[in-house]
Amino acid sequence: MAKKLWGGRFTSDTHDAVNTFNSSLQFDKRLWKEDIQGSIAYCKMLGKQGIISEDETKTILSALKEISSEIEKGTFSFDESSEDIHTLIEKALIQKTGTLGEKIHTGRSRNDQIVLDVRLYIKNATENILQLIKKFQLSLFELAEKNQDLIMPGYTHLQRAQPVLLAHHLLAYYEMTKRDIQRYEEALKRINILPLGSAALAGTTFAIDRKFLSKELNLHGITANSMDAVSDRDFILEFIFISALLMMHLSRLCEELIIWSTQEFDFIEISDSFATGSSIMPQKKNPDIPELIRGKTGRVYGHLMSLLTTMKGLPLTYNKDMQEDKEPLFDTVDTVEKSLSIFSLLLREIDFKKENLKKATESGYLVATDLADYLVTKGMTFRKAHHIVGDIILAAQKKNKELHQLDIDEMKHFSSLIEKDVYEWLDPASCIERRNSKGGTGSQEVKKALHTARKELNV
Amino acid sequence: MAKKLWGGRFTSDTHDAVNTFNSSLQFDKRLWKEDIQGSIAYCKMLGKQGIISEDETKTILSALKEISSEIEKGTFSFDESSEDIHTLIEKALIQKTGTLGEKIHTGRSRNDQIVLDVRLYIKNATENILQLIKKFQLSLFELAEKNQDLIMPGYTHLQRAQPVLLAHHLLAYYEMTKRDIQRYEEALKRINILPLGSAALAGTTFAIDRKFLSKELNLHGITANSMDAVSDRDFILEFIFISALLMMHLSRLCEELIIWSTQEFDFIEISDSFATGSSIMPQKKNPDIPELIRGKTGRVYGHLMSLLTTMKGLPLTYNKDMQEDKEPLFDTVDTVEKSLSIFSLLLREIDFKKENLKKATESGYLVATDLADYLVTKGMTFRKAHHIVGDIILAAQKKNKELHQLDIDEMKHFSSLIEKDVYEWLDPASCIERRNSKGGTGSQEVKKALHTARKELNV
Amino acid sequence: MAKKLWGGRFTSDTHDAVNTFNSSLQFDKRLWKEDIQGSIAYCKMLGKQGIISEDETKTILSALKEISSEIEKGTFSFDESSEDIHTLIEKALIQKTGTLGEKIHTGRSRNDQIVLDVRLYIKNATENILQLIKKFQLSLFELAEKNQDLIMPGYTHLQRAQPVLLAHHLLAYYEMTKRDIQRYEEALKRINILPLGSAALAGTTFAIDRKFLSKELNLHGITANSMDAVSDRDFILEFIFISALLMMHLSRLCEELIIWSTQEFDFIEISDSFATGSSIMPQKKNPDIPELIRGKTGRVYGHLMSLLTTMKGLPLTYNKDMQEDKEPLFDTVDTVEKSLSIFSLLLREIDFKKENLKKATESGYLVATDLADYLVTKGMTFRKAHHIVGDIILAAQKKNKELHQLDIDEMKHFSSLIEKDVYEWLDPASCIERRNSKGGTGSQEVKKALHTARKELNV
Amino acid sequence: MAKKLWGGRFTSDTHDAVNTFNSSLQFDKRLWKEDIQGSIAYCKMLGKQGIISEDETKTILSALKEISSEIEKGTFSFDESSEDIHTLIEKALIQKTGTLGEKIHTGRSRNDQIVLDVRLYIKNATENILQLIKKFQLSLFELAEKNQDLIMPGYTHLQRAQPVLLAHHLLAYYEMTKRDIQRYEEALKRINILPLGSAALAGTTFAIDRKFLSKELNLHGITANSMDAVSDRDFILEFIFISALLMMHLSRLCEELIIWSTQEFDFIEISDSFATGSSIMPQKKNPDIPELIRGKTGRVYGHLMSLLTTMKGLPLTYNKDMQEDKEPLFDTVDTVEKSLSIFSLLLREIDFKKENLKKATESGYLVATDLADYLVTKGMTFRKAHHIVGDIILAAQKKNKELHQLDIDEMKHFSSLIEKDVYEWLDPASCIERRNSKGGTGSQEVKKALHTARKELNV
Repeated sequence: MAKKLWGGRFTSDTHDAVNTFNSSLQFDKRLWKEDIQGSIAYCKMLGKQGIISEDETKTILSALKEISSEIEKGTFSFDESSEDIHTLIEKALIQKTGTLGEKIHTGRSRNDQIVLDVRLYIKNATENILQLIKKFQLSLFELAEKNQDLIMPGYTHLQRAQPVLLAHHLLAYYEMTKRDIQRYEEALKRINILPLGSAALAGTTFAIDRKFLSKELNLHGITANSMDAVSDRDFILEFIFISALLMMHLSRLCEELIIWSTQEFDFIEISDSFATGSSIMPQKKNPDIPELIRGKTGRVYGHLMSLLTTMKGLPLTYNKDMQEDKEPLFDTVDTVEKSLSIFSLLLREIDFKKENLKKATESGYLVATDLADYLVTKGMTFRKAHHIVGDIILAAQKKNKELHQLDIDEMKHFSSLIEKDVYEWLDPASCIERRNSKGGTGSQEVKKALHTARKELNV
Repeated sequence: MAKKLWGGRFTSDTHDAVNTFNSSLQFDKRLWKEDIQGSIAYCKMLGKQGIISEDETKTILSALKEISSEIEKGTFSFDESSEDIHTLIEKALIQKTGTLGEKIHTGRSRNDQIVLDVRLYIKNATENILQLIKKFQLSLFELAEKNQDLIMPGYTHLQRAQPVLLAHHLLAYYEMTKRDIQRYEEALKRINILPLGSAALAGTTFAIDRKFLSKELNLHGITANSMDAVSDRDFILEFIFISALLMMHLSRLCEELIIWSTQEFDFIEISDSFATGSSIMPQKKNPDIPELIRGKTGRVYGHLMSLLTTMKGLPLTYNKDMQEDKEPLFDTVDTVEKSLSIFSLLLREIDFKKENLKKATESGYLVATDLADYLVTKGMTFRKAHHIVGDIILAAQKKNKELHQLDIDEMKHFSSLIEKDVYEWLDPASCIERRNSKGGTGSQEVKKALHTARKELNV
Repeated sequence: MAKKLWGGRFTSDTHDAVNTFNSSLQFDKRLWKEDIQGSIAYCKMLGKQGIISEDETKTILSALKEISSEIEKGTFSFDESSEDIHTLIEKALIQKTGTLGEKIHTGRSRNDQIVLDVRLYIKNATENILQLIKKFQLSLFELAEKNQDLIMPGYTHLQRAQPVLLAHHLLAYYEMTKRDIQRYEEALKRINILPLGSAALAGTTFAIDRKFLSKELNLHGITANSMDAVSDRDFILEFIFISALLMMHLSRLCEELIIWSTQEFDFIEISDSFATGSSIMPQKKNPDIPELIRGKTGRVYGHLMSLLTTMKGLPLTYNKDMQEDKEPLFDTVDTVEKSLSIFSLLLREIDFKKENLKKATESGYLVATDLADYLVTKGMTFRKAHHIVGDIILAAQKKNKELHQLDIDEMKHFSSLIEKDVYEWLDPASCIERRNSKGGTGSQEVKKALHTARKELNV
Repeated sequence: MAKKLWGGRFTSDTHDAVNTFNSSLQFDKRLWKEDIQGSIAYCKMLGKQGIISEDETKTILSALKEISSEIEKGTFSFDESSEDIHTLIEKALIQKTGTLGEKIHTGRSRNDQIVLDVRLYIKNATENILQLIKKFQLSLFELAEKNQDLIMPGYTHLQRAQPVLLAHHLLAYYEMTKRDIQRYEEALKRINILPLGSAALAGTTFAIDRKFLSKELNLHGITANSMDAVSDRDFILEFIFISALLMMHLSRLCEELIIWSTQEFDFIEISDSFATGSSIMPQKKNPDIPELIRGKTGRVYGHLMSLLTTMKGLPLTYNKDMQEDKEPLFDTVDTVEKSLSIFSLLLREIDFKKENLKKATESGYLVATDLADYLVTKGMTFRKAHHIVGDIILAAQKKNKELHQLDIDEMKHFSSLIEKDVYEWLDPASCIERRNSKGGTGSQEVKKALHTARKELNV
């Protein structure tokens, strides 16, 4: 009977089906690097504290590095029958160092070990994602800057509302992702905390040095309560939630790109190399990338719900249910990384059709608010002005004219306050210029925003 | 430039990153069997209708079967650069048959082809799951029958409520899974429907015979509207929801097994081969299997939410977002199959501790309702009887006695209606016997329920 | 100390904050009708079984009816301090009939009583929703029939794909809601089941007649296991899920209506009485109704997730958590009913702009598939034909022409198989006619579908 | 025809059903205070900027304050036919001030106005919740301090694992809620931002002073992009997510309280005034409060999913779907506030049963890890020691003894390293003392933790 690491008190072998069902190796082998990194730090600490000797420390460290380099080179044989990556690496260590390796788990439990591994993993993933968001923002910025003079309709309810600068529209997404960055960065404060030393749940009887471990692993501090430390999964949930928000932001831009690339809107052209066709319809060119990213939003939402459900109502401390934390996490990381990466590329492959955008601002009475504002400057109350402009629009529609196509008498019919200077107000470009309130679409404001972005992105 | 199947109108190659991001081969290769099964039927139909000749039919059929057997044997080389399993198999067919293979897609689109594949896949999965539920029910039935005479506390609010037969408790889960079966079976009516012939979205110009295809593939009928057919994912959502309910049921039994195997309840012993230990605490024996199944409930909930989100607000007809339907589906199938399989085995490894169960029914005033009912039979109103029994219990608690330990005078103090025959009513076994209302825990009723289950399970 | 119905054994009053927190009256008073309906049936049964006398039966029945009519008239005073509607009505009954009323709870528990109430409530709600779906389908049918001859672009990936009949597009939603109806109807089989007689969890000691109760309440049968009966909430979850699917279907049509009413698509006009404006932009006319219904989809998804979460991992039998089942249910019913009602009205207020629809089918190479099919009829393989048509489209795009604008020599340049008869194939109307495969957009097929709908709707 | 505020261009009245369906007044009237607060600041700013005169400013301000006090006193008549609270208050203002009131909306849109209102609302709610968490922590702290010397079993997998101090266990929840506080506080940085000045979507043409507004409303800054500002709902989602995590934490403690109050565990007694009974079973005393809080976790999860779904894929900027943001938010606030409030009270009503807790630590081999650690101190490797202790436990179980009940020879049989000093190691109290690693359950560490909490709570 091949005993498990924990097999002492058991009188019969684990059933094969149980081994298979319980095993997490298939997915947690992804944590091998973090697991070894953690063991290296732990071994150093055991040595420093005299729990193992200097020689023992050296032997174990060199064996761990050997394992690491074997895995990297692909020469390490993953024994699929191992329960998990921690067991696998501990076994390999014992194989290399004999009974000495059996000392590595002194004062440590898989409960605190696994939390450490996942924390290190998310630390790395977050740092990578932060880079990817910056790249995405850079693409966005470049697209905005390149098309700085383009005017387009701003929409509410997907109805033409007021003229805006395309750059202003794009920079709205820059703002959203700035918040995403802020959230990821704040979460790091709760991620980069050392749980080691919590052991199974109660702390350990060995004289370990947790602060040393924290420093060694570049973490910000240590967990304050051992029972909390081994049963806390907040940091994973927070990471997934922040990612869900990020995906939601991307999904909104995707929706817009899809709509803009319809034959009806025809605001953009995505380059052939970033679109795909149909197996049956030879003319088709589909915006697959934004569609797929939009679709993947559901995936990350699902992972969030998955882990929230799993954690609900679990008594302290570790329960096996928590093993279900890893797959949603890993897939969230993959989804976010892939989506951001391809989106950054995609943005460079988009051409805006200046003429179509412009034409679209010229019909649909987008300047109506400005006409009302004009009346207010002439002394009318805003609510009254709103009503009168409504009436003017009704009349214009009947004549099949836009507002600037009405002559001054047609206008004056509705209010004697209207003078010839009104036509200046009815030019979309001037509407934009007038919106120089902070954060508005006025070109000075947009220039400032581009300038800020440039500084933030160091370009 | 290696053209895609749909590459005609494209002037530049798809970007590599796009190929990788778009590709579904990594997960949809799981559909190879269904894809070939569908193509075989489609080819026969094209032949029957004279769209391809008899010889062509034979050649294509034999090539398809060859591909199938190569995949089964593991000699087929999966070209990872293919977009999806459909493209891959079409390419392999063309490789084997030359331009002839290029005819297989006549009147077909990947849009209807993929829906067919998924429908066939769920059909098979559902049939397999139905078998697995039956096995689970059989284990449950055997456990209930074996322990037919055991009395235990029935709980509400996890507080001891009334004595019940253990078998009655277990059969509650039999009822839940009966509903699961019923739901899966009803869903099959909406799953086993042929979408082929809908082509891209509008139907096809070729004289295809959809009813023949439906019969050939053992389906119940054909879809009624081609646009609906290619954009409908209800059948996947329904399958995942039914699976979520099933997992919820399992999670409840898991919770009970976990609670019952605490040292405090100590109602059951799980055999060593179905439990696991701790890497640090040598005494531990943990109910990992029920914990893990309970945890996996979140997983299926997450998949449900994932696909519901993806489908929300999609315009007709096919959108690339829908490619995200497959992974949640596949993982749901895996999770349900694995959970049911191991649960059926686990149930056989559970021993109930008769004495502990019995002892538990003897304290906690579980017979209080019977005392109230007794008073009602003596002419008191139920609401009054309830109050008086409450008072008796208070008094008994102060004396640290159970109800049957009070002597008749102590009882009569609260109501002169109480006579010596009351002690019969205070025996847990008699409480059970008295509950012979249909569906109650009375042993006759439970015997009937076991009998019904035996018939339904054909044992 | 004002005792609770269950207060006998308690030595101190419930804390006010507890009363408030626990109370469900604020929302479950909505069940008053079902609660009284259930009590009336229960009282009749108690009488029939001789558990109460004939006179007692009459007195209680008349008091219950009195309460009912008082509530209906608004003269009943809802004592907000009651725990729940069941307690409130029992108290009112006792007030009217004295101690006699205290007999109504004989052999009954709130556990089975509340399940009955909710089952009756969903039964009624489902029947009402089925009517509302029919009305929605009727509006859809009428809209389709009225616009029977209109051709529009069919879309995949929101890109123009192939010409379809508008009626065909609308009938896709008819199919979706047919499945919704089917699902609600099947669920009724699991909803319309009598739980009464299960009492708290174990059945009752009184000689009650459950089949009589079932018949009296127009239900299909009785629950088989008392422990399952009081802790089963499947029927609520199933109802909410089916409703979530329905909302998802509506959300898709909403998305389309919103897109179609953009200035860019301009396919429809929603009447002024079904649109709203802006507080600041005088020209705005917004498709609020479809937006709001689309938004409400999330609401029902949320309710589904809410109750799934609540039910996960609950041990048998009743736990107070389950009180959380009612608000998501009630709000789901309200949301579905309101959304369907207003949607049926909205559909009647939509005008399709025939010219715009037609124009949209004339550009974008929607007939490309037909050109490929044409080549297949001339003997080319489909895959080859697809490539060649791709090339033709490229050439046409460069010349800024649609396919039918190419002259025969320009065409022949790509394949000598192309003859003058090709122009017939390039007319959108003929493309539609050719798609007479079952369920396709061919006008004969669509006529049949309309005919079927007409029969199903009895119009 | 009674025109809407926006009715100018509309030729027919809004359909009644549309008014009802669209109206948000029923729920958004909850924002009246924030709406008036916002208008007061806005009016001051209009005055300061000379957009309205000093007199006009005074008149409007006094009218707004009048409205506010009327609502507070309950004398304000809520016209249910108003679209929303903003319209209602604007109308009331106009009623009081005549056409002057029509100026209040100058340069403002409901789009930025509503975002402001919700931001102010969440600001207040968050501040209140932070207080309630502190109260909850205080109750937790007091309970921990009061029971400072109690030893109980620490659990993993709900199996007895190692002895811990009850106070250590309770303080785990203190840590969780510290993270909750941190998250709420960080979120405030993104909540307390002024959106006013964004107008409908593009900014305004009036010379408004956004920084003044921000200061006036005690906010931290102003939004940077007007299009983002009116379509951003991140701050609501973040608030709901943080609340979902908080509820998850509470649900875990609830699960424990429920388990601890079973007759089998019998670790705690909840006072009668915080428990409830059964309508049928006179002996029942149920832990309703923790059950209900545990159940309500689903509710907040559901709200999170609801709004995430609603926001997915919405194009810029405002869409009516977003009106669905308010009810999930409000109910989340209510649920969290109510749950925290009652939980703080409940914790004061819990008595721990010292003897039962102690007894529970004495069986189940909780000291096994210490025996292994003992062997390590004698020179054995940890992995070896773990195995040997497993063997000792097996032998002890057969003899039905706990470890400390084995005599020294029985022990030595397994390892000659074991000496008489081992018995010191087998006392649960000493096990606790030895765990003085930082954050462990050692009493010095727990004292430190209590000390820290005391300082943080200012008690």
